Amino acid sequence: MTPDLSKGAAWMRGEIVPIAEATIGVTDWGVTHSDITYDVVPVVNGAFFRLDAYLDRFIASMRSLRMDAGLTRDDICAALHEMVPASGLRDAYCAMVAARGVPLIPGSRDPRDCGNHFYAWCVPYIHVIKPETLEEGASLWVSEHIRRIPADSVDPRAKNYHWGDFTQGLFEAKDRGYETVVLLDHQGNLTEGPGFNIFLVEGNTVYTPDTGVLEGISRSTALEICVEMGFETRVEPVPASRLETADEVFLTSSGGGVLPITRVGNRIYGNGKPGPVATRSRKTYWAWTARSEFRTEIAYPT
Amino acid sequence: MTPDLSKGAAWMRGEIVPIAEATIGVTDWGVTHSDITYDVVPVVNGAFFRLDAYLDRFIASMRSLRMDAGLTRDDICAALHEMVPASGLRDAYCAMVAARGVPLIPGSRDPRDCGNHFYAWCVPYIHVIKPETLEEGASLWVSEHIRRIPADSVDPRAKNYHWGDFTQGLFEAKDRGYETVVLLDHQGNLTEGPGFNIFLVEGNTVYTPDTGVLEGISRSTALEICVEMGFETRVEPVPASRLETADEVFLTSSGGGVLPITRVGNRIYGNGKPGPVATRSRKTYWAWTARSEFRTEIAYPT
Repeated sequence: MTPDLSKGAAWMRGEIVPIAEATIGVTDWGVTHSDITYDVVPVVNGAFFRLDAYLDRFIASMRSLRMDAGLTRDDICAALHEMVPASGLRDAYCAMVAARGVPLIPGSRDPRDCGNHFYAWCVPYIHVIKPETLEEGASLWVSEHIRRIPADSVDPRAKNYHWGDFTQGLFEAKDRGYETVVLLDHQGNLTEGPGFNIFLVEGNTVYTPDTGVLEGISRSTALEICVEMGFETRVEPVPASRLETADEVFLTSSGGGVLPITRVGNRIYGNGKPGPVATRSRKTYWAWTARSEFRTEIAYPT
Repeated sequence: MTPDLSKGAAWMRGEIVPIAEATIGVTDWGVTHSDITYDVVPVVNGAFFRLDAYLDRFIASMRSLRMDAGLTRDDICAALHEMVPASGLRDAYCAMVAARGVPLIPGSRDPRDCGNHFYAWCVPYIHVIKPETLEEGASLWVSEHIRRIPADSVDPRAKNYHWGDFTQGLFEAKDRGYETVVLLDHQGNLTEGPGFNIFLVEGNTVYTPDTGVLEGISRSTALEICVEMGFETRVEPVPASRLETADEVFLTSSGGGVLPITRVGNRIYGNGKPGPVATRSRKTYWAWTARSEFRTEIAYPT
């Protein structure tokens, strides 16, 4: 009997398994040291969106963490091209993961002695903020108590699962009735939130933070879209105080593209309706997911 | 056939399984957000050492992270008392873990919606630094590039798997031929290393950092031992520069007790031999593991 993969599938040591059966050992340093890196390429309407950019970043993250899972870029690409069609999912969140593993020399505490390994999994497409919430107007909380883990502690550019700061920030936000949270750095500048980058629009200029953040692929796409729409884009430190003077705020994420925000703390933007720049960018993002140069078509079984 | 548990055992959803079969789902927030807390009680010569202190801290960590795995303190205690004798291990590293789980409301991104869960595992006793290395003289590297994750990003007192800073620091240390690494905070004070607290001895005073560190049970034990030996103990910020004037340096860990250090960077202490305070503390630590008031005897099958 063919297993049901409609809730998601995983590629584990070359085998395709239902997502519920995809596990990692409790002593793997990927768990016990969060010594693990990942990336997530969106699957939109039967194709990977900007697959090369996601693969490039994943390989750069592994290199940065000195991991070698023994697979080439082509091997990884082949694993994704085997797993997603097997799941049958045409709109999916497709994760590729590399973990440190366990020491191959018993008793070693040296990360160089570990057997690194790769796995992948996909589930139905994830929205960081649900589309219906975005239409009604989504709210953002600026954490009062939690600061983003600094880049000289854990480099945010090597995509990682160190989300303790985000999770505590989310509790703060949810307890106050906000949809999600953005964290400041220790200098009071905006950084990022759980699964997204942040943008501010002021007049004809669009701003997004330069350091202490993941260099998001969706962030790149949004910057390209803003340039195409005739905006000046500036990637530089953005003090939290700039939220007071901004015309619009939006987020970018591979889990939803461009996400308009209508309230940050007590401040309401655009009378509580998604702003024109965010709305146009959001539409353009989804239009770009149909452009052939950004799509890597997936061969589903017929 | 009885499974071989000599390499370790785990308590998973009430079942005792071999350690190699103990796994966690790849989509569990315990993995994907490192949203997980743990504690490790040492088993020494057939008894848990200071079990109450470890259980207290584990329960405090869960409370701090707002996790409820649905088990009482007595349930957790019973799980450990079932698992360790089943393994037959009389000297063991015994981990108790609580993970956030996955959202019980599909598509939720709210940590309050997750089904938290508990598991435990034990393996043969782990030495953070091997006893033979300690006798020869163990070296410590002060990271030049990596700073400890600050407490306002991730609270180190809630014991956690956010080890990205430690791992990068370990690479720095191992590449330079050092045994392990200690990280500074962003103010230049000593914090801790991968699995241990740090102590400095200067004259009749013993110092250990007060903030930005796990409040180690072995650290408490070492402080009590130092008081008993007639030292003044000071728990306060310790600038890294104090390594230059210290007479001795030692580490404390549930994986080895008191660990003398003979070299930090280029500085050699005590002509490269473990110092008298560390040596006496180390012996006393192991003597204390035999004291009945600190031991919770384990009922092994006969």
